[in-house]
Amino acid sequence: MDWTLDTARDELMALQRKMAAYDHALGLLQYDGATTAPKETAMNRGMTFSVLAEEIYRLSTAPETVELLEFLDAHKAELTEKEQRMVYLLLKDIRDMQKIPMEEYVAFQELLVQADDVWHKAKDASDFELFRPYLEKIFDTNKRFAHYIEPDKDPYDHCLDQYEQGLTQATLDDFFGKLREKLVPLLKQVAAKPQVDDSIRFGDFPINQQEVLSYYLMKLMGLDLDHVGLSTTEHPFTTSLGSHFDERITTHYFENDFVCSMYSVIHEGGHALYDTGSAEDLAYTVLDGGTSMSIHESQSRFYENIIGRSRSYCRLVFPKLQELFPQQMAGRTAEELYRAVNKAEPSLIRTEADEVTYCLHVMVRYELEKRVMAGELEVKDLPAEWNRLYKEYLGVDVPDDKHGVLQDSHWSGGLIGYFPSYALGSAYGAQFLAKMKETVDVDRCIENGDFQPINDWNREHIWQYGTLYTPAQILERTIGAFHPDYYVNYLYEKCKDIYGLE
Amino acid sequence: MDWTLDTARDELMALQRKMAAYDHALGLLQYDGATTAPKETAMNRGMTFSVLAEEIYRLSTAPETVELLEFLDAHKAELTEKEQRMVYLLLKDIRDMQKIPMEEYVAFQELLVQADDVWHKAKDASDFELFRPYLEKIFDTNKRFAHYIEPDKDPYDHCLDQYEQGLTQATLDDFFGKLREKLVPLLKQVAAKPQVDDSIRFGDFPINQQEVLSYYLMKLMGLDLDHVGLSTTEHPFTTSLGSHFDERITTHYFENDFVCSMYSVIHEGGHALYDTGSAEDLAYTVLDGGTSMSIHESQSRFYENIIGRSRSYCRLVFPKLQELFPQQMAGRTAEELYRAVNKAEPSLIRTEADEVTYCLHVMVRYELEKRVMAGELEVKDLPAEWNRLYKEYLGVDVPDDKHGVLQDSHWSGGLIGYFPSYALGSAYGAQFLAKMKETVDVDRCIENGDFQPINDWNREHIWQYGTLYTPAQILERTIGAFHPDYYVNYLYEKCKDIYGLE
Repeated sequence: MDWTLDTARDELMALQRKMAAYDHALGLLQYDGATTAPKETAMNRGMTFSVLAEEIYRLSTAPETVELLEFLDAHKAELTEKEQRMVYLLLKDIRDMQKIPMEEYVAFQELLVQADDVWHKAKDASDFELFRPYLEKIFDTNKRFAHYIEPDKDPYDHCLDQYEQGLTQATLDDFFGKLREKLVPLLKQVAAKPQVDDSIRFGDFPINQQEVLSYYLMKLMGLDLDHVGLSTTEHPFTTSLGSHFDERITTHYFENDFVCSMYSVIHEGGHALYDTGSAEDLAYTVLDGGTSMSIHESQSRFYENIIGRSRSYCRLVFPKLQELFPQQMAGRTAEELYRAVNKAEPSLIRTEADEVTYCLHVMVRYELEKRVMAGELEVKDLPAEWNRLYKEYLGVDVPDDKHGVLQDSHWSGGLIGYFPSYALGSAYGAQFLAKMKETVDVDRCIENGDFQPINDWNREHIWQYGTLYTPAQILERTIGAFHPDYYVNYLYEKCKDIYGLE
Repeated sequence: MDWTLDTARDELMALQRKMAAYDHALGLLQYDGATTAPKETAMNRGMTFSVLAEEIYRLSTAPETVELLEFLDAHKAELTEKEQRMVYLLLKDIRDMQKIPMEEYVAFQELLVQADDVWHKAKDASDFELFRPYLEKIFDTNKRFAHYIEPDKDPYDHCLDQYEQGLTQATLDDFFGKLREKLVPLLKQVAAKPQVDDSIRFGDFPINQQEVLSYYLMKLMGLDLDHVGLSTTEHPFTTSLGSHFDERITTHYFENDFVCSMYSVIHEGGHALYDTGSAEDLAYTVLDGGTSMSIHESQSRFYENIIGRSRSYCRLVFPKLQELFPQQMAGRTAEELYRAVNKAEPSLIRTEADEVTYCLHVMVRYELEKRVMAGELEVKDLPAEWNRLYKEYLGVDVPDDKHGVLQDSHWSGGLIGYFPSYALGSAYGAQFLAKMKETVDVDRCIENGDFQPINDWNREHIWQYGTLYTPAQILERTIGAFHPDYYVNYLYEKCKDIYGLE
């Protein structure tokens, strides 16, 4: 093709709009599968998924596409900062993709649709053996793809890098080491104190009332319900369906405990705020959406925990809870809610874990992924190792695989190397809070239910940029250097307040 | 390409699988828009829709595709009957499509997504002016496309032919003429008799109980709930998402009247039975699914009316109604239900019309479409003409456009020439019933809740063939020649029974 800079720029935008359309279709297929699709339709969805995945592969690796991007790369100096980043990200993706044989790429997409279906069934039946062959293939494929793309790199480091550019096992070993060193004694101190009464969260909470609560919470945190939808699924998640104009979050209601869904909604709502907060001119480009999973989790866990489990927030929402659940909240107080949602206690399920023990759940997964990827542990031995590490790190006995190794949807979704993002994100969030407090009276905003100054700060420093900056650049621009101490201190303060530690 | 017959056959199947995948994605986008998508997401969906529609257009009209089909067409004699039909249908579609400029094809797909959104809003607000510009474009595009494809044919005849191969205004004028000649005096006879008491259908029917009823009815009629899903939408519809392995029907619940949703479910369930009843080897080919809209409606309206409004069926489901709505059904009888759901009375809304007046609703739409397509009526004058014809044909005064010209979703979906299928389908169904009764004791099957012999008959004669045979061939193979008298007699018998006519 004979490009001019202008025609090439137009083509660049057209290419990205096309990719966004395929992403929309694929995202919707997954969303439909998790929300409303009839039970036995996964195979049908898998066939469509693989056809569309093959089309994306063809489109991305087509000679015209590569030629276009190389032309633009050669004229880098004349491009805007955003265009430069688009070209860089697209070329990197394509070069990675070209290293994977198309049949293997397509087969993996198809495998994931099947695996998701089988995982649901295996979890229901608490039957790891049912899921094992799929999980083996998923780990194998991750190893193989890592080898194709970066043959000289440790395969698990390659996986980590996919979710957090530049992240390595060395960094994580250090980070998790520091956390463990502080959190294990903290947990001991907490255990020596009388336990918090969390009976306020249990009772009979009709699901239609919980649903009203969900929409109240979404509006309260500043989500635009005209563009952000809510559904129910086995495992809560957030998905962006074609730029930030159509975002979906999901939750899971438990009739006997309203707190689970409440904090799922706030957590997923945090993801949705980030996704829908990209600058408008990033729409339908690869710069749209979050820059890394840990920055994403820094936002979701910021809203869920730092805001959502604060005393001010509990005071703010308590009247709504009284209105929705008058009988259940009779004679209760906002302070009881605050204490209940901050109860620190080792438990089995990561998504329901308190802030103090949360990172220990992540460490178990990190250890296991690391060893499977290194070939030191076989998939078939994962349940036993899972249970052993839960005993060692958290002191709990895992009764079955449903409450153990089968609890999360990440592995069935092919995501190996994702879990550390949750811990990193939590830690980033605490440092963002400290920085935010320099210019925003955070507690007062929460008390007043005025989230705009908080959202504006996040938008200004994080959301608007989409993937224009790397996670490291976002951190550097916002907080300078990352220190896990902010997070550890934040947890100590919380425990002091709740448990009256010295 | 150097084809052999074998490689070409393989390619033929691969091509159809690819098309099925795009259809799945497009169908899901529409379904999502009508069911769970947040309110302001239509524009985003429209962008994706237009990108994928463009991809389908490119795929269909690609030189390799045409070359493949022409190769197979040249070797027709060596192909199976099914393969011959695939090649014929694909080539016909492509040749039609090639006559439409790609930009116009894509623009139309995008327009329809917008139009659906605007129609919902216009209907809510009873504001035809809001929808008018979209409807004008839809009619104009239908005229233009008709002219591109068959320049020498009357454009409305072209539209009719799209839903029912070979159908013309001449045939319909004759058919509707005969019906009117018989139905108008029948309605007069009915009006002279005391009206039926239909108070059994009104009251307070909680939506979650109505939902239980829906699933009961779906199972009862033999739908496989592992592959057929149910959602709620403004306007009930059925959509097939990639072959007959994933089918979705929708309904609309009214808390004060359980009959509306009940018969929507049975109607849409009939469509779903037909779609999912294709022979397995038609999956992921263009032969999968119903052969025409009128044959489709012959099935949906067969289950809804001929079965669903029979005395036997009312007796069969009444105990379930008593179980689900004990207070509302206290002191009521199955006979009251039977009489209530067969009350004949001119009304405003087609989908809620009784069997006797139903075809008059269709005739209004037919007259209007015919005149707009002929350029004898302008879109801006549709509301006034609608209201005038409702007065003339049904004797009712239309209070506003929500209950008039804006009531149906068909025009916003681009479907011009579809409505006559409902009347034809109803009439075919009555003749199918007569034929079925020669070998199946239909009433007894219904009384026993044993739908298998009925479904087997429909599967054997209709469902299994998909689009292998044209509607005319299906009629010929099944009932020989079509006579509207069967339908008229069926309606007379029903009215005799309900109203005690002579």
